Amino acid sequence: MSVPEIAPFHAIELSALAHRLAAEGQDIIHMEFGQPSTGAPTKAIERAQHVLATDPMGYWESQALRERIARHYHDTYGVSIRPQQVILTCGASPALVLALLSSLTPGMRVALARPGYVAYRNTLKSLHMVPVEIPCGEKERFQLTARAIEALVPAPDALIIASPANPTGTILPEQEFRAIVRVCRERNIRIISDEIYHGLSYGEPAHSALEYEPEALIVNSFSKYFSMAPWRLGWLIIPEDMIDKARARMGNLFLTPSSLSQHAGLVAFDCSEELEGHLVTYRKNRDLLLQALPQMGLNNIAPPDGAFYVYADIGHLTDNSLIFCEELLRDTGVATAPGIDFDPVNGHKFMRFSFAVSTDRIEEAIARMIPWFSAKTDK
Amino acid sequence: MSVPEIAPFHAIELSALAHRLAAEGQDIIHMEFGQPSTGAPTKAIERAQHVLATDPMGYWESQALRERIARHYHDTYGVSIRPQQVILTCGASPALVLALLSSLTPGMRVALARPGYVAYRNTLKSLHMVPVEIPCGEKERFQLTARAIEALVPAPDALIIASPANPTGTILPEQEFRAIVRVCRERNIRIISDEIYHGLSYGEPAHSALEYEPEALIVNSFSKYFSMAPWRLGWLIIPEDMIDKARARMGNLFLTPSSLSQHAGLVAFDCSEELEGHLVTYRKNRDLLLQALPQMGLNNIAPPDGAFYVYADIGHLTDNSLIFCEELLRDTGVATAPGIDFDPVNGHKFMRFSFAVSTDRIEEAIARMIPWFSAKTDK
Repeated sequence: MSVPEIAPFHAIELSALAHRLAAEGQDIIHMEFGQPSTGAPTKAIERAQHVLATDPMGYWESQALRERIARHYHDTYGVSIRPQQVILTCGASPALVLALLSSLTPGMRVALARPGYVAYRNTLKSLHMVPVEIPCGEKERFQLTARAIEALVPAPDALIIASPANPTGTILPEQEFRAIVRVCRERNIRIISDEIYHGLSYGEPAHSALEYEPEALIVNSFSKYFSMAPWRLGWLIIPEDMIDKARARMGNLFLTPSSLSQHAGLVAFDCSEELEGHLVTYRKNRDLLLQALPQMGLNNIAPPDGAFYVYADIGHLTDNSLIFCEELLRDTGVATAPGIDFDPVNGHKFMRFSFAVSTDRIEEAIARMIPWFSAKTDK
Repeated sequence: MSVPEIAPFHAIELSALAHRLAAEGQDIIHMEFGQPSTGAPTKAIERAQHVLATDPMGYWESQALRERIARHYHDTYGVSIRPQQVILTCGASPALVLALLSSLTPGMRVALARPGYVAYRNTLKSLHMVPVEIPCGEKERFQLTARAIEALVPAPDALIIASPANPTGTILPEQEFRAIVRVCRERNIRIISDEIYHGLSYGEPAHSALEYEPEALIVNSFSKYFSMAPWRLGWLIIPEDMIDKARARMGNLFLTPSSLSQHAGLVAFDCSEELEGHLVTYRKNRDLLLQALPQMGLNNIAPPDGAFYVYADIGHLTDNSLIFCEELLRDTGVATAPGIDFDPVNGHKFMRFSFAVSTDRIEEAIARMIPWFSAKTDK
């Protein structure tokens, strides 16, 4: 056995190029990463400032925050969990690591949608687990189906669900979600549900896997809806029988998340007015982008139900999305993410736009991209 | 293969009891964890306040901080590393996880001293690696020796070095450190050196493994010398040929550490006056404790060269250090850590005192403990 090779995250390279170009004086619009440009809610920042001024702090796991998160599941999804089932982490990424290490072992097979978030595949490989990619096309709006999971032989040991999904923003319809859970239960497949984009929906809200399966592991964080990505605070919800295993792993592998972030995160739950304002912006950005895409010759997309991404087919323009995104960046200053980060098979003909920026930046990006794409199409 | 069982960290249970007793009105002196009670340096907090007031921040890896850390190795140890070799993490704990996942695979054998920091053993087990414990007694001041590593058959794949060590605070003598590195080189044993207590020495400063072995992996953090434990910021130094593997794992498994902590951490390097003041306090606390221990009937200890711990033999008083520490806590309000956290074999007759508190609290703890231990001894 050797330390596995892992594909680089190309959007990071493009972002580094974008920052170099900015340093050279080019005006860059950052649509390459999934991070809100808005910063933490005002009251959360005020709380952090107060704590900094008055409390030296120590290693800490906020019981109040775990209780608040448990209440959130009751209020939002109508499910009951105990605060003990909530483990606070340094973001959704280590929460996924903790979920995998607490429930699975090396060599186990974990199914996931392709396209999907690059880190699922790479984290599995790093932990010597085996990603089983399920190709999900436009017909299924790039989402998993019960039928596809039923067709896997042998049954995988676990399944990662992402709804809303990255890079597409599509949400699993309730009926299909229920059917997937049923198949997983029949086939004894452990569900790990990444719900990091919950709260960011443009139609029906997304459902939590906990509504259908109390044994599911749930990954979430303060990075997206709560606009606190750089604060590195997330959580994992674990079933009762896994509490000791998962908490022992958290304490040994990670200790605790930032105490200051926990103080601020608790207050963020009381900032819905400000946070819903961000959602209004994203909705406007989404509409502008969906209107503009046909003018850019991009007609092959699944309109996002949630999150802040559009995943667009550019197969008629390129067979190398990395070079294509780099050209777009150099020519227009608009930084995006190449599809190969999300789909090693078909991603060379897709790209992802993140619209978690201000509306005037989206308008500016569109104004630059329409002529650029037209010129490409005319070639 | 199943998800491995991991022993609980008993000091966490005792600390929880201590907090319950405090809530009931008892005056508690916290000597159970290795965390400074002083808080981050004043200028680091000021910097964080300024950033909070002016910058929404984003996912970030501070190039300036990586350069500053590289310079620190030059200034302190006379070794040259490139900033690219520095990976910023959410503390030393995930830095160790990253080190292990970047250099080793499941089933590999990793040698370490017993007694030792509980998380080494548990993190190895969680990642399906095999801890090979080397019993280190008083004669070796609880530290590794080249001879012991030479005697391991077969040779382990890696060795974790901790100097100053937890729970004993002992530092590897330079001669012995060199000899250990020589044996590891001959036997092809990868060195992972946890240098989290560097900067906290009461005699000769500790040496970095990098002085003798450029291929060593170095774990360190802002939690101890820099007094920033709750900020969750640490680093890993990796050899050149491991940069891609380790950086890919950081990005996928953890993304980035807190941006605010990185801003504050950079300034902490300019706060040596304040931080050296803490060291003066620890030295005073250490002296008071070393004077008091004989009066408590505890004569069997290795005086700590660094860190802020004393590991004491209580074998004449108990054969169950957990129950003993709990009694001490309930009777006197002094919270400590039982030896079983650090040594599953002999730890039932040891306990650890952390003296990273203020001097008046140490004096108060000693005043309470002397009569309590006398009564125990007289029984």
